[in-house]
Amino acid sequence: MRQNLLHGGSQKLDYEIRDIVKKAEQLEKLGKKIYWENIGDPILKNADVPDWIKEIVSELVMDNKSYGYCHSKGIIETRKFLAEKNNEFEGVQINYDDILFFNGLGDAIGKLYQFLNPYSRVIGPSPAYSTHSAFEAAHSNKEPLTYNLDPDNNWYPDLDDLYLKVKYNPSIVGILVINPDNPTGVVYPESYLKRIVEIAKEFNLFVVSDEIYGNIIYNGNKTKRLSEVLGDVPGISLKGISKEVPWPGSRCGWMEFYNRKSDRNFDDYCLALENAKMVEVCCTTLPQRAIPRIFSHPKYHEYLKEKNESIASRSNIIGNHFKNIDYIKFNKTNGAFYNTIVFQDGVLNNNQFLKIEDDKTRELAESWVNGISKPDSRFVYYLLAAKGVCVVPLSSFQSNLLGFRITLLEENPEVLQYTFQQIAEAINEFCNSDKVMETEQVNLA
Amino acid sequence: MRQNLLHGGSQKLDYEIRDIVKKAEQLEKLGKKIYWENIGDPILKNADVPDWIKEIVSELVMDNKSYGYCHSKGIIETRKFLAEKNNEFEGVQINYDDILFFNGLGDAIGKLYQFLNPYSRVIGPSPAYSTHSAFEAAHSNKEPLTYNLDPDNNWYPDLDDLYLKVKYNPSIVGILVINPDNPTGVVYPESYLKRIVEIAKEFNLFVVSDEIYGNIIYNGNKTKRLSEVLGDVPGISLKGISKEVPWPGSRCGWMEFYNRKSDRNFDDYCLALENAKMVEVCCTTLPQRAIPRIFSHPKYHEYLKEKNESIASRSNIIGNHFKNIDYIKFNKTNGAFYNTIVFQDGVLNNNQFLKIEDDKTRELAESWVNGISKPDSRFVYYLLAAKGVCVVPLSSFQSNLLGFRITLLEENPEVLQYTFQQIAEAINEFCNSDKVMETEQVNLA
Amino acid sequence: MRQNLLHGGSQKLDYEIRDIVKKAEQLEKLGKKIYWENIGDPILKNADVPDWIKEIVSELVMDNKSYGYCHSKGIIETRKFLAEKNNEFEGVQINYDDILFFNGLGDAIGKLYQFLNPYSRVIGPSPAYSTHSAFEAAHSNKEPLTYNLDPDNNWYPDLDDLYLKVKYNPSIVGILVINPDNPTGVVYPESYLKRIVEIAKEFNLFVVSDEIYGNIIYNGNKTKRLSEVLGDVPGISLKGISKEVPWPGSRCGWMEFYNRKSDRNFDDYCLALENAKMVEVCCTTLPQRAIPRIFSHPKYHEYLKEKNESIASRSNIIGNHFKNIDYIKFNKTNGAFYNTIVFQDGVLNNNQFLKIEDDKTRELAESWVNGISKPDSRFVYYLLAAKGVCVVPLSSFQSNLLGFRITLLEENPEVLQYTFQQIAEAINEFCNSDKVMETEQVNLA
Amino acid sequence: MRQNLLHGGSQKLDYEIRDIVKKAEQLEKLGKKIYWENIGDPILKNADVPDWIKEIVSELVMDNKSYGYCHSKGIIETRKFLAEKNNEFEGVQINYDDILFFNGLGDAIGKLYQFLNPYSRVIGPSPAYSTHSAFEAAHSNKEPLTYNLDPDNNWYPDLDDLYLKVKYNPSIVGILVINPDNPTGVVYPESYLKRIVEIAKEFNLFVVSDEIYGNIIYNGNKTKRLSEVLGDVPGISLKGISKEVPWPGSRCGWMEFYNRKSDRNFDDYCLALENAKMVEVCCTTLPQRAIPRIFSHPKYHEYLKEKNESIASRSNIIGNHFKNIDYIKFNKTNGAFYNTIVFQDGVLNNNQFLKIEDDKTRELAESWVNGISKPDSRFVYYLLAAKGVCVVPLSSFQSNLLGFRITLLEENPEVLQYTFQQIAEAINEFCNSDKVMETEQVNLA
Repeated sequence: MRQNLLHGGSQKLDYEIRDIVKKAEQLEKLGKKIYWENIGDPILKNADVPDWIKEIVSELVMDNKSYGYCHSKGIIETRKFLAEKNNEFEGVQINYDDILFFNGLGDAIGKLYQFLNPYSRVIGPSPAYSTHSAFEAAHSNKEPLTYNLDPDNNWYPDLDDLYLKVKYNPSIVGILVINPDNPTGVVYPESYLKRIVEIAKEFNLFVVSDEIYGNIIYNGNKTKRLSEVLGDVPGISLKGISKEVPWPGSRCGWMEFYNRKSDRNFDDYCLALENAKMVEVCCTTLPQRAIPRIFSHPKYHEYLKEKNESIASRSNIIGNHFKNIDYIKFNKTNGAFYNTIVFQDGVLNNNQFLKIEDDKTRELAESWVNGISKPDSRFVYYLLAAKGVCVVPLSSFQSNLLGFRITLLEENPEVLQYTFQQIAEAINEFCNSDKVMETEQVNLA
Repeated sequence: MRQNLLHGGSQKLDYEIRDIVKKAEQLEKLGKKIYWENIGDPILKNADVPDWIKEIVSELVMDNKSYGYCHSKGIIETRKFLAEKNNEFEGVQINYDDILFFNGLGDAIGKLYQFLNPYSRVIGPSPAYSTHSAFEAAHSNKEPLTYNLDPDNNWYPDLDDLYLKVKYNPSIVGILVINPDNPTGVVYPESYLKRIVEIAKEFNLFVVSDEIYGNIIYNGNKTKRLSEVLGDVPGISLKGISKEVPWPGSRCGWMEFYNRKSDRNFDDYCLALENAKMVEVCCTTLPQRAIPRIFSHPKYHEYLKEKNESIASRSNIIGNHFKNIDYIKFNKTNGAFYNTIVFQDGVLNNNQFLKIEDDKTRELAESWVNGISKPDSRFVYYLLAAKGVCVVPLSSFQSNLLGFRITLLEENPEVLQYTFQQIAEAINEFCNSDKVMETEQVNLA
Repeated sequence: MRQNLLHGGSQKLDYEIRDIVKKAEQLEKLGKKIYWENIGDPILKNADVPDWIKEIVSELVMDNKSYGYCHSKGIIETRKFLAEKNNEFEGVQINYDDILFFNGLGDAIGKLYQFLNPYSRVIGPSPAYSTHSAFEAAHSNKEPLTYNLDPDNNWYPDLDDLYLKVKYNPSIVGILVINPDNPTGVVYPESYLKRIVEIAKEFNLFVVSDEIYGNIIYNGNKTKRLSEVLGDVPGISLKGISKEVPWPGSRCGWMEFYNRKSDRNFDDYCLALENAKMVEVCCTTLPQRAIPRIFSHPKYHEYLKEKNESIASRSNIIGNHFKNIDYIKFNKTNGAFYNTIVFQDGVLNNNQFLKIEDDKTRELAESWVNGISKPDSRFVYYLLAAKGVCVVPLSSFQSNLLGFRITLLEENPEVLQYTFQQIAEAINEFCNSDKVMETEQVNLA
Repeated sequence: MRQNLLHGGSQKLDYEIRDIVKKAEQLEKLGKKIYWENIGDPILKNADVPDWIKEIVSELVMDNKSYGYCHSKGIIETRKFLAEKNNEFEGVQINYDDILFFNGLGDAIGKLYQFLNPYSRVIGPSPAYSTHSAFEAAHSNKEPLTYNLDPDNNWYPDLDDLYLKVKYNPSIVGILVINPDNPTGVVYPESYLKRIVEIAKEFNLFVVSDEIYGNIIYNGNKTKRLSEVLGDVPGISLKGISKEVPWPGSRCGWMEFYNRKSDRNFDDYCLALENAKMVEVCCTTLPQRAIPRIFSHPKYHEYLKEKNESIASRSNIIGNHFKNIDYIKFNKTNGAFYNTIVFQDGVLNNNQFLKIEDDKTRELAESWVNGISKPDSRFVYYLLAAKGVCVVPLSSFQSNLLGFRITLLEENPEVLQYTFQQIAEAINEFCNSDKVMETEQVNLA
């Protein structure tokens, strides 16, 4: 090429989570059955889309209008419906002009950072959800800035860490909250949200709250939407239908802008996001047309309740598998449908392994771990090869902690029990493997 | 805010095409009926989605799989199907790994420029399709670079102009072709495409061909796909189902990468686009599942043929309205469904007007044209106010020519005739209005 | 112009210190005598260049060689001489290749920041010496990053503040020390320097030490050169002959690179500085030729001793004027030849003034303070207009403190006494002026 | 380091001209005498600084004022003197505020590009003087943009090439002229300068004219200063005392701003240059004080005349050595004191060599040319090793031509004759060496 084509930030888009998929696919080719615990796709994990939702959609696709372009900011009726939904809560009130649709939250998150000045940074939680951290890093061409979620305190954010990082780094202009959180499953208590808003106010920042899991909370937990705690601070919430309907393939999410007019620069930034979407013409029409019908359907609330109960029940089943393993820190999931398991300090090393009978599989696993510097990746690769369970190493989530992420989505109870029994056994075997080896070496000597 | 939030390039996203819509909406509030000739949405213009397509989609939405995520690059079966489609033609052969899905071409075009180095520029046609020119300008934070389409030569590109601009501007790394073109409706002859590829080869550039209208060609015109003329030059074609199915609301388009492995830097750039999409998880699942079924349906080719014949017939009807007006340059449309009408040099000035009886409407029109420096905008605003016909001024398309863009989409024959008769009359009245005025002034004197 | 000419960072070069000069020049035109306390130019303040130095220079200028280019990094003999000077001290040892000459430290400081990546920042002291802070801001196109010097602790640096700012701002790559300091006159104790080096080591930073006043220390104070405390941390010291010879008009300063080879990236950065100088061909030849002769002249040490004693004596005279004024914080100067006087919190307001008899002068002063938001500038402008003493407001030195900077250079004892008596009286009058006014208002009522 | 320290543009500062010096120094260590034809330092080439100049300087250094800072823009009296000098010519008139001093033209050129927006480019001549081309490349982080000087047309600029490059590259904001030119020695005819100004006017550019050799013109040639041909176009000339006094070691040059107030953006840019110098405090005082005394000294004009005659005489001597060599294109030098000799097309190849008796020297030469892709570098290295003559390859001057640069400075007539005889012989021997080899091979066969 005549000149270098690549934007500097593009090299930050490496998405380690996908590497594990390529490895699992190698095993599949060897005939191994894979238990996919690496992605939060309810459909893949045997969730049925309820018939009443399918009927709504089916009816809509017989109508020409569902095939046409819609308003560049999203269908006005749908935005009015959603503005009213927000306004039922005490807090920041909005109208339909404060809502902007995107082709899924991936698109929304991408543009959120793309149109931010490269010198202006948004600090987010660690462990991090990769879509946020990768796009923030690509926008700034720098490593993501993160505050810690604390596995020794229910994964609640370390607010002192956040405060100091914000205070002493003037390039930070926004704080990201994912509530409920992926990958930890933590539900932020109201008091934590209020303190975060207080920090934003002190340093003149905006707050972004990714609330894609906002209706997936259980085990008696409670939290607040951003709009309920924000006061007069500028903020953006991110919402969508991927997770709760569930319809991730629709690529349909939206931003709600709060207190947009309170700050000229923030208002211009929201306008830039709107303009960017206008240049793309518009977002997916069909799911936008479905939203009011689904959300106001008589069966919707019962459906959501059952769904949450079902995840809660799985959170308990999974908890039973893990709560007595000394090698790990385990916090029960209370929202969304992920759990992040952390190994205790000093438990892992680079000599541990799982026994694999099949030669080809073992050789493959050994080639994967050869030269790997992160011992949680080592565990994850062995788990995949030995047990066929595909999870994501925690070190892929912008975290210094060692561990892995699982999902709470498996709808088939036998598969669920089997999968987590395999993981629990694997942890014990792996953490003991070097001691056994030592013993064996002693015996051999 | 603590620091400036705005990315420098974001100010380039102003999308003048939408301004006219706001003006039309003001008129609607006054009770005026609007004839929307400003947007290429077949559905809006009374096109029916054929029943057999609705049936395919309807069947798909009863299947859980249509609701889940799909592969981050797009459904493998669909990509295999499309790769085979391309490979039926002589030219660059691809496999499914060379295809990357996006949420519509707006998304594809946005990312095409976003991940390009800001110093590396793509030159495109003028008049320009705004989605390309605005995103190119936002990526570079500079005015778009363009080569001329020549209204005195069937809107064919001015290849000497292109050659000189490429030769003497080392920041140019790619050439954009829109074939068939929006907004001119020109279909590039094969010889022109070959010369463009030759220029790209001489200066080590890649070629982008936006082929969203690739199957909408008529009046006996012929062209070639990029893959057929590209030889060993790196290239990208942009395709989708918005226009021909027609399903613009699906937000479903894709890139085909050609000769990707022939240049390391180009290959890395394609990888950056793939990674960006992976970070967003994936694109709309449902339309991807529908593509093979629609494209291989027995009724598809007949449907396309009828559709093209119907646009061709409208191109002739419209031609009859315009071909004898001396004030304009008119080139019949032979592809896509737009026509760009250019006023002859020196015809327009800032004293011309259309008569408007209603006082409120006239005052509104006068407030719009007050201080307007582009006389084609003046015509367009008067046309809107006096006749209710909403078209887009050509000066909004990165062009120094004066004129306006219309569509060939209206399916209702009476509305079609009425609309274009109104426009034709308006041109004559407008261009004569200052002479009349002079005459009147003479009479008054 | 065809495109915007201005580099973004150029707007950070506003140098407020010079504004006061323009005001003083306005007064001179009205016939007012000005006492220039705004600039550290010994020559201007009646310092004589000793005859033995003039003789050295006079002899050199009869030699053709003094007129030619020299080595692009500086005359090799001079660099060897200076490397040996450094190596007499215990600490980092260098050879002549580790020395790079510049056209004065202004040039050195400018290039230091110019060739630093714009995202990589150097934190420096506040109050700041403007040449550092302005060039750092221009390089980053951001506000300077600073750590506090504490007027309640002898102007020693607030090391906790520095530590937290470094720890939580990953863009910081270097720490700047000015020792002895301009504008506070503080001499850094060895323990403070060691802690700064420790912080640099913990976070993988380099240290820059501006030692232009390195031989101007008195009142029994002691410090260390950077090379003596640096250990194995990469560092750069900045030295020159402007202040001690004194020959500021020579534009002759140099960098000493320490532990250059310990870090590849630091080494490349030093090379970039060398290359930049090579492209400029070389630096001033004559003063470089003079350096070894002056520094090794038998009278040099005596001269330096006398000079320091003389500044020390002035520091005491000045101290006597200020030490008993309640309205200010006063720290005696122990190095360099500046003193920064800080007003106690809450002492200043926007109603205070100095009496000025002459109408024209008073009107001028009132026009200056009209709309001024910083009350130390208000004091400074009144001091200038009422007493003819030109000092620089502290708020011009990247500081939130209110106060002003004076110099210790005046060689004429009567002028010295007169100047500081004027300042001391002005402080008292100014701080009382609003109380008097209140009283007067009471009396009038 | 914690983050990358290097500014992207810093890698463009590689200054190939200096590489040859390192090679020559290697030879010196082997005992070889070097004839330095690589640098334009008159002092090095045995030029005497006239006694009357030394006396002026000697007198000045006995005065304290010559040691102090001066005005940040330069001594006012000197600037007034120089403004008057300019105003003696018909053309743009200036006052002392339009003059800004620098520490030599290297400093001036560096800042000229440093404070230019990185997207805004200045096109300059090729072959290029490296200080311009390297700093322009560093500012833009791109390859320099150049127009051709034509060796088949007396090295006059190719104005069509310039026009097309300017027209079709909108990032170009300025045109650089070096008149008389280094390295070609061409003196621009007035008509060429006027056409360049015309191009600048058409595209709204500014013109920079490097006139450091402005008084070194001979052989009956004539030209104009920029201010004489500029009309109302914004422009900057660069002047200094390095070359004509000659006092290159003084680092004393200046910019003259023309028509500064005719364009707001240009005015702001000039202000940014002034501010940058203000932040550095000021430039070298002593040579600025000397300028009016030297330039108005009764002996100055006679001195200049003799000096030019002497260079002219050398230009003829050198011409006699080269004019009859068929392998080269030779244009006699008419200004400045360089000549660039170009090999005829196809003359050079990678098998040519010069005979070197001494084994060590030959091995060194062979190690230098091993893997060298530019055959003019090959000639230059062999010339150095075989004859001890150090010249600079033309391919180091941003040129596609092959050749080398010599100087016209040698004051010693025997050395002059010897040096150029050596070069002439070397050209013939080198260009024949492969033919001889072929013959030898034939004989051996």
